[in-house]
Amino acid sequence: MGFEPSQRVAEIESFKVMDLLKRAKQLDAEGFDVVHMEAGEPDFATAPPIAEAAKAAIDTGLTQYTPAAGIPELRQAISDWYQQRYNLDISPERIIVTTGASSALLMIFALLTDGGQSFMMADPGYPCNRQFLRFLEAKTQLVSVDAEQNFQLTSELVKQNWQTNTAGVLLASPANPTGAVVHRDELAEIAMQVKNCGGSLVVDELYHGLTYEQDTPSVLELDQNAFVINSFSKYFGMTGWRLGWLVAPMDAAPELEKLAQNLMISPHTVSQYAALAAFKPETIQILEQRKEEFRKRRDLLVSGLRELNFDLPITPEGAFYVYAGAQHLTDNTFDYCWSLLEEDHIATTPGRDFGQHRCDQFIRFSYTTGLDRIELALERLQKRIRG
Amino acid sequence: MGFEPSQRVAEIESFKVMDLLKRAKQLDAEGFDVVHMEAGEPDFATAPPIAEAAKAAIDTGLTQYTPAAGIPELRQAISDWYQQRYNLDISPERIIVTTGASSALLMIFALLTDGGQSFMMADPGYPCNRQFLRFLEAKTQLVSVDAEQNFQLTSELVKQNWQTNTAGVLLASPANPTGAVVHRDELAEIAMQVKNCGGSLVVDELYHGLTYEQDTPSVLELDQNAFVINSFSKYFGMTGWRLGWLVAPMDAAPELEKLAQNLMISPHTVSQYAALAAFKPETIQILEQRKEEFRKRRDLLVSGLRELNFDLPITPEGAFYVYAGAQHLTDNTFDYCWSLLEEDHIATTPGRDFGQHRCDQFIRFSYTTGLDRIELALERLQKRIRG
Repeated sequence: MGFEPSQRVAEIESFKVMDLLKRAKQLDAEGFDVVHMEAGEPDFATAPPIAEAAKAAIDTGLTQYTPAAGIPELRQAISDWYQQRYNLDISPERIIVTTGASSALLMIFALLTDGGQSFMMADPGYPCNRQFLRFLEAKTQLVSVDAEQNFQLTSELVKQNWQTNTAGVLLASPANPTGAVVHRDELAEIAMQVKNCGGSLVVDELYHGLTYEQDTPSVLELDQNAFVINSFSKYFGMTGWRLGWLVAPMDAAPELEKLAQNLMISPHTVSQYAALAAFKPETIQILEQRKEEFRKRRDLLVSGLRELNFDLPITPEGAFYVYAGAQHLTDNTFDYCWSLLEEDHIATTPGRDFGQHRCDQFIRFSYTTGLDRIELALERLQKRIRG
Repeated sequence: MGFEPSQRVAEIESFKVMDLLKRAKQLDAEGFDVVHMEAGEPDFATAPPIAEAAKAAIDTGLTQYTPAAGIPELRQAISDWYQQRYNLDISPERIIVTTGASSALLMIFALLTDGGQSFMMADPGYPCNRQFLRFLEAKTQLVSVDAEQNFQLTSELVKQNWQTNTAGVLLASPANPTGAVVHRDELAEIAMQVKNCGGSLVVDELYHGLTYEQDTPSVLELDQNAFVINSFSKYFGMTGWRLGWLVAPMDAAPELEKLAQNLMISPHTVSQYAALAAFKPETIQILEQRKEEFRKRRDLLVSGLRELNFDLPITPEGAFYVYAGAQHLTDNTFDYCWSLLEEDHIATTPGRDFGQHRCDQFIRFSYTTGLDRIELALERLQKRIRG
């Protein structure tokens, strides 16, 4: 009698943190002072020049459909950004503006896999990637990574794990949930290895701009055949504006544009005009200040967690997450995160949302909240752990 | 050496009208006075109360992610709309706000088909539907319809064409490109037939509100198990805002919410707050005036085309399209549309974009341009045809 979803959808998982998020909001509403370290979005408001540009676009009546691949001005502005930031010459024709990075990922996986083919990626990793592939009747090949591999795939791992049905490899650098970066030499070797195997390399560069040790190379500096996914959500702080982009090799771009026509019609118009202001010097200045703030938060959080004996052998170099080993406290971080929320009013994300490999030993802390709040969370943790 | 897309993407078709669109814009740029009757979007600017609400949301900083299914206020407002317009009691929990109707369609097809299963729909019809299914490794079963069937599926056609791998039926009422409406009795019979076959019924109600003879029933008045797709793009005139919604049976809604989490994260935040103003009486007043304008345009265009002996046995009851038979002029409307553009500067869409059935006999004229422009197009047509 009940509704039966397709097998496809039955196998797609929801975020395990959702119930915990709901409970955290309920505690907020009940007046408890919850420290929120569970969110995957910056806590800063959209930078004023971007907000102003959006309002100007509305006033000008720029609210109709745009070309499926995005307005030419924005594709050009992104191309200029590659020139400025990476000294890279990327033709605007290779750039497609998308509805967040989500639709970029979906389209690229659709382009590179047929039903039954698989994509290789690291475990732990961003959970939706697996769901995109299942959605498309394709498969995910999770490869376990640990601190010894800097929580990233290596060329050796790619080689060892390549199978006949492997269509390609997805890297994320900096990565969610670990903040780990793939360094230049390793990136070049992975690109070479994927090429030798006859597959495609996709790199999620969503957290580019938010790195605190050194700038992360774009894979495009090393391999012009790689596919890149990026977004205005993280460094540019435009989450709710749902705008991302992809870079594809020249001969693949028209195929993706065709998909975009069919799947999205066009990206959000006002968001596109707003994003033009994201590259302005006055905006970048604001964003760089915010990055410095993130760095301070990271340093505070990492040292505080280390003091409490969380397992953090590598300092996370980017994004706004710390993926901390809590094996000294529990062998079930899922339950532990619930108890952290209920007893200490600290909202975090359990490792189980990011894969299977040693997931019950890890907790993801987002530093998308102020220094004072991170201090408070650390105090509460200290009291809990040391009494 | 060239890039090889997946079989999936190789088989997905681009809009055949794209080159024609590009050429039309080129003619515009060269200073020619092209009458644009090719667009699938209203030519009116976003209604001022909606635009103002968007700007207010930006000023308030409402630019972060929202719940995946949309902000509760908007789900409630849509629920209220069903009460007000259709006298229907639809729980907000059954309503999911989406990134345009496009992502609603994609998620519903994903929910209702596994790889290899098929969905039945009318030919001619909205071209992306087929591409969504191919994208998902599912299939489309096109059923040819003509004026005798009011260009819509009938319960008889559903029965005749049902196959073991048919997962369900997609109706669009009013339909693109024909403007044809499925009337209440037929809709009830189709719903019953689909139920008897053990399938799911999906109704694209995107053009609801834009009907000129009588109000179109929502399938939800007749079948609470049907899935409905709707959008803020057409009646509400919010194309570039990329906002739609779906209504699902209560036990299917959580599955779709799970998909939305993974595929979209959340719909556009500012658009959602803007859409709250779409239901205000002052907005509805503007939209109803625009609808009257559309009616006048339709009447002018239909009578003008009939005078020129275009085949229009049924007056299109809704949307903003006239799908006119041009078999007295050509047996290849694709070439004919090109020549209409080049020689007479009238941009239209050839039937080939909407299916295979007698497609080369039809031209779609959009009345998304003013009465004076439609007059001009008719004069040019007259000159062309009658000399």
